[in-house]
Amino acid sequence: MTHSKLMDTKVEDLSMNDVLAAHEGGKLLVTSARPLRNKHDLSLAYTPGVAEVCKLIADKPELAREYTGTGHTVAVISDGTAVLGLGDIGPQAALPVMEGKCQLFTNFVGVNAVPIVLDVHETDALVDAIAAIAPSFGAINLEDISAPRCFDIERKLDERLDIPVFHDDQHGTAIVLTAGLRNACRLTGRLLTELQVVISGAGAAGVAIAKMLHEAGVPDIIVLDSRGIIEPSRGDLTPIKRELAGFTNPRGITGGAAEAFVGANTFIGVSRGHIGEELVQTMEKHPYLFSLANPDPEIPMDIAYKYGSVVATGRSDLPNQINNVLAFPGIFQGAFAANATSITPAMKLAASQAIASIIGEKQLDFDYIIPSALDPRVAPAVSTAVEEAARKEMGTLDEHHF
Amino acid sequence: MTHSKLMDTKVEDLSMNDVLAAHEGGKLLVTSARPLRNKHDLSLAYTPGVAEVCKLIADKPELAREYTGTGHTVAVISDGTAVLGLGDIGPQAALPVMEGKCQLFTNFVGVNAVPIVLDVHETDALVDAIAAIAPSFGAINLEDISAPRCFDIERKLDERLDIPVFHDDQHGTAIVLTAGLRNACRLTGRLLTELQVVISGAGAAGVAIAKMLHEAGVPDIIVLDSRGIIEPSRGDLTPIKRELAGFTNPRGITGGAAEAFVGANTFIGVSRGHIGEELVQTMEKHPYLFSLANPDPEIPMDIAYKYGSVVATGRSDLPNQINNVLAFPGIFQGAFAANATSITPAMKLAASQAIASIIGEKQLDFDYIIPSALDPRVAPAVSTAVEEAARKEMGTLDEHHF
Repeated sequence: MTHSKLMDTKVEDLSMNDVLAAHEGGKLLVTSARPLRNKHDLSLAYTPGVAEVCKLIADKPELAREYTGTGHTVAVISDGTAVLGLGDIGPQAALPVMEGKCQLFTNFVGVNAVPIVLDVHETDALVDAIAAIAPSFGAINLEDISAPRCFDIERKLDERLDIPVFHDDQHGTAIVLTAGLRNACRLTGRLLTELQVVISGAGAAGVAIAKMLHEAGVPDIIVLDSRGIIEPSRGDLTPIKRELAGFTNPRGITGGAAEAFVGANTFIGVSRGHIGEELVQTMEKHPYLFSLANPDPEIPMDIAYKYGSVVATGRSDLPNQINNVLAFPGIFQGAFAANATSITPAMKLAASQAIASIIGEKQLDFDYIIPSALDPRVAPAVSTAVEEAARKEMGTLDEHHF
Repeated sequence: MTHSKLMDTKVEDLSMNDVLAAHEGGKLLVTSARPLRNKHDLSLAYTPGVAEVCKLIADKPELAREYTGTGHTVAVISDGTAVLGLGDIGPQAALPVMEGKCQLFTNFVGVNAVPIVLDVHETDALVDAIAAIAPSFGAINLEDISAPRCFDIERKLDERLDIPVFHDDQHGTAIVLTAGLRNACRLTGRLLTELQVVISGAGAAGVAIAKMLHEAGVPDIIVLDSRGIIEPSRGDLTPIKRELAGFTNPRGITGGAAEAFVGANTFIGVSRGHIGEELVQTMEKHPYLFSLANPDPEIPMDIAYKYGSVVATGRSDLPNQINNVLAFPGIFQGAFAANATSITPAMKLAASQAIASIIGEKQLDFDYIIPSALDPRVAPAVSTAVEEAARKEMGTLDEHHF
């Protein structure tokens, strides 16, 4: 088992010229789905033919999914307030990330994706703007919107719209991380129900991970924010942290990282904080150490490999990368296939299990608990699992399968 | 000169199956502008490389035009309140038209175009929603928004945003119609300054046509709405009609169509009304009759051909079709090329002249005063003319040409 092999490019190794060349003129092309060669083609796709399709949809709005792109078009939407590790850089500077995300959608599952960056930030105004454009799309992928606003924004949109709304920084991360944790358990013989987890960071990812692990049956989860353990006696909790306090920290511990780490067997870092050796030493032996901060994992790699059993990061140049791209393409494709109106917890769990299941017993290894971001088997497996979970919940599974 | 030849397909001749097949799954594809073959490609277009581009744009927002798609991406935006001849059918049912328009953009000038339909109708809310998403795009094509709201909406957006905003139902129609009228004059020896024009209809197209002809030097324009001649003594004028009353009807005529038609040499119908033979008979001999209502021109074709010198319609199955597609692709391409921040009257006039000039002296004929909607020479000519007009106004012409 070699932990040191580098699998990919670091930013230092990239030529700025190559990076700029990959962005010149933008990264997306919008083209006609069918050739328009002559007046006859035009008369079918545009006037006068198009009027017949407009009338059909005006009579039966559900036909829009069939005769417009909404049946397979995702809007990738950000207000630019929490972009990568760069923070609040604004909508225009966030656009390259959204375009890149759209490239991944088309590349992995052939779904149309359109980047939308928003020049509004107040929660209700932002929700109104997204709801206003929603009939243009079949689903909404929220991206890089700062916490705690992201929680309210997603909830309000999900309540208001009858199309799937999915904040990838929350759920994408939680789904892939849970898949990795599942496989760490498979590999080393622990059960999810035996995990004692410390999550460092109560932003978008930390909150969603806590919820998902709780739903997956992990009994003992402690979440740390910059002020210590999140627990009900604290007077400074936001609504979402109060929600966390309600179902985490079953042993009722108070204090900070020192108290939280003692005896834990799983660390999940989504914080950009620093965790020193003295804390890792207090954990159960052979812990799982998932330090997702990028480019500098919370636990330095030498310490992680010294103490950890399974080590995972967010970096593409190290083994076991927790990369959202394993989740979102298949999730949206599956949701489209099932005509789902939202992405439910059951669909997220199904996605997570599908990602974990890609790796067979014999392949599973300390360096290989999660498939590569480019593994072509992942998206179809996730899509199928998500579609089935959605149909099961909606009671349309039989119709589809028989 | 044969006026009866049919040049194209009528809606009756289209198979509904073919129309539906042309719409199945939507009419647009969004794809990656460059292949993502491996982790290296991904590291350039997405993380970690993309962060460098985000930082560049955060420092210098004007670089967004270079390193995102905004330099050549148009949003085609409607609220579905005035779709084709179908009226207020709502955003979802309007989407096929917007997708079709986007196909035309990509087809004629390779510009990215994204269909956006809006589920808000109140003027300020609609302006707010469009302004909110504006940083995602390089220009905005408003489409099928009902009058008189469209005037306010366009004006407010143009004031608020630093990218071109263009309501095609107004200006596209005015530009192409003016080109046709210009060539009718060339063909038959009248001057624009000799025209005595009756415009039937004071909606989006009628208002823009009146303004453009006035700017082009046509001295005598009368505009009719459903209540008669628009003139200052009327107490029922909306703000935009009051504006019309200020520069039209120089002879101060009151009354209705009967009074307006006497002695006129040009009729422009953008109203869906009906103009009978008894009115046409009162016009100057050999008038220009441009009846754009679709599918039923205001002046029935047999009467138009009996009295008219040059006859034009909005129909693709008759000669001399006044079709916006001659204007908007080249206009946006030219505006992008010049980095224009709005579409000025000078740019619109340049577009109109470029369209008219496509037809050489020898080709000009009663059946051929306007190029075919599919003529590949039109968009490049319009684009060049619009770019030059824009650069001239912005004082950047020299820099570009030498």
